[in-house]
Amino acid sequence: MPKWENNVRKVVPYTPGEQPKIKNLIKLNTNENPYPPSPGVLAALRSLDADGLRRYPDPAASDLINAIASHCGVSCDRVFAGVGSDDVLAMSFLTFFASGREILFPDITYSFYDVWADLFRIPYEAQKLDGNFEIVNRDYYKENGGIIFPNPNAPTGVLKSLDSIRDLLEHNRDVVVIVDEAYIDFAQDAEEVEKGKHQVPPSSALNLIDEYENLLVVQTCSKSRSLAGMRIGYAVGSKKLIAYLNDAKYSFNSYTMNQAAIAAGCAAFEDEGWFRQCTSKIIRTRERVKKELSGLGFHFPDSSANFLFITHPSIPARELFARLRQEKILVRYFDRPRIDNYLRVTIGTDEEMDTMLTFLREGVDLT
Amino acid sequence: MPKWENNVRKVVPYTPGEQPKIKNLIKLNTNENPYPPSPGVLAALRSLDADGLRRYPDPAASDLINAIASHCGVSCDRVFAGVGSDDVLAMSFLTFFASGREILFPDITYSFYDVWADLFRIPYEAQKLDGNFEIVNRDYYKENGGIIFPNPNAPTGVLKSLDSIRDLLEHNRDVVVIVDEAYIDFAQDAEEVEKGKHQVPPSSALNLIDEYENLLVVQTCSKSRSLAGMRIGYAVGSKKLIAYLNDAKYSFNSYTMNQAAIAAGCAAFEDEGWFRQCTSKIIRTRERVKKELSGLGFHFPDSSANFLFITHPSIPARELFARLRQEKILVRYFDRPRIDNYLRVTIGTDEEMDTMLTFLREGVDLT
Repeated sequence: MPKWENNVRKVVPYTPGEQPKIKNLIKLNTNENPYPPSPGVLAALRSLDADGLRRYPDPAASDLINAIASHCGVSCDRVFAGVGSDDVLAMSFLTFFASGREILFPDITYSFYDVWADLFRIPYEAQKLDGNFEIVNRDYYKENGGIIFPNPNAPTGVLKSLDSIRDLLEHNRDVVVIVDEAYIDFAQDAEEVEKGKHQVPPSSALNLIDEYENLLVVQTCSKSRSLAGMRIGYAVGSKKLIAYLNDAKYSFNSYTMNQAAIAAGCAAFEDEGWFRQCTSKIIRTRERVKKELSGLGFHFPDSSANFLFITHPSIPARELFARLRQEKILVRYFDRPRIDNYLRVTIGTDEEMDTMLTFLREGVDLT
Repeated sequence: MPKWENNVRKVVPYTPGEQPKIKNLIKLNTNENPYPPSPGVLAALRSLDADGLRRYPDPAASDLINAIASHCGVSCDRVFAGVGSDDVLAMSFLTFFASGREILFPDITYSFYDVWADLFRIPYEAQKLDGNFEIVNRDYYKENGGIIFPNPNAPTGVLKSLDSIRDLLEHNRDVVVIVDEAYIDFAQDAEEVEKGKHQVPPSSALNLIDEYENLLVVQTCSKSRSLAGMRIGYAVGSKKLIAYLNDAKYSFNSYTMNQAAIAAGCAAFEDEGWFRQCTSKIIRTRERVKKELSGLGFHFPDSSANFLFITHPSIPARELFARLRQEKILVRYFDRPRIDNYLRVTIGTDEEMDTMLTFLREGVDLT
């Protein structure tokens, strides 16, 4: 090894999820939305002009920040945007978990948390979920350097109640608590979503940000807004938290959101009707698929997300994963302790789910 | 201050360059290209489809990597892409400057280097440019943790010769050397650019990457490709360097380049004719403006970039900055030691430059 390589930071390479180029694939492996984004998004991209492209974007992405703030019912100085929620979360780790004390998160959770902690040399201690994949609050009462968890959790889909989150916050006033709500829009009643009953999902920790200055809520346009391809994530919290995030971001890369992402994000938030329609459809499909899978003998935690985390007593998950793949149905298998007999299945269209259900019913021996 | 704020990383906030919304402004302050990107870029953005937007982008951005690799005449595993060269550079600091020893860069240079070093806690020692704003090679012969400099340098526009870069590399085989070539396409003869004589600019350190495994060259689509608004930067180097960068990037945020950026970047590299035409025009304008400014008594280092770094014995730079701003001509003033009597003036269209020259000739007392 040449000497210069001694100076290089070595990280364990992460392999991103499969994006295979198989024709007629039913892709249920990355929790993408099966429905396209609002037609307004394409219109916004079409109306980008050449003069806008040659110029630097607004570093504050003000138009997008306005749209998000207005959607969440907060002032603009309480919103931060980034290149997908991964960017927002990584920036939040860097900014808020700088105490040198161990941060806490669930042992079964979004797979990037420990990677970012390692990258920024933040010590951490994963806290074991209980047998129902629930967070055990008392494990988070001890001294720590910060807390993060997804709600609903991934890859389980389990939702933590607002009361339970409040309890965690009451026990953690001296550190930053981050609730990662990539899937929160699906944690609602389909009919209430359709009718637009709540501006903000009743289970969202957004309902607590006025009470807890140390609470940061992270959301994304990748799931419920059908914009995974445009990389738009955001954080909402107190003015102080957002100011700290902005300071860190501006010192790193002032211009992270390109003109196209800003335009697409604005258009997505403008079309609440489209959002309600697609989201309620996915929730309805999920509830129907839950019933069908139960009837076939599958077990799963009760998911509040756009995916189900399923296991079956008669067939190992790894085997079922391979069988489904042969049928061009791609789901996600995690070869990790405690969850290596589960599959994470994204909720697709009704048609896609029916194809999968038919195969499970007729092509696999589940007795 | 509540206790949670003790855990927060404090950085000196950086204020990004002015992007004022003044009508009919002649904007010569951020080194943007005065000409629009290739029409193919808009066409590519118009042809983005809804299905692509709802899906995650290719994490490897293969189409864009292919386009860049083909342009630079290297294999794909020698190219890394990111959200503007700021993202690529920050990721390179994090990845390659991990020795704990001081890295070296010029005292007058791109203003983000020390900010990233501070952010990642990389020690550094700025090396003084000589009286002609030239890098003094022997200052870089000592033991160090890595080297970075822009070529042409910013904000001076001064080009370092390939022989001189080779000398630096010969004295620094044990660390990573990064040449930041945001402006290298302008460091050419206008006629040669127009005729497409060189695939790679003769002064580019790209001509040395086969010889030095520890050499990383960073370029961008923000200047010569007129795509500042789309945030596309890239690095080219040995397979090993690129593999290390990818490992770091994938551990941070797998999906950094959105669908629109990938499509826009590909289209920009496909249209070499457009690139040659705009770039040669800017170089010709720059050479003409040099003569005119010299005639008016201005002094400046001989710039090889799309900007000039000018000073005048009769009027303080700060005053001239204010006078130009009154005329709706915005240039860049840096209130820093050694350069606080200079203005950085981006090369705009011939018309824009003529407006400025007319004002300098008629509106300011330069005697």
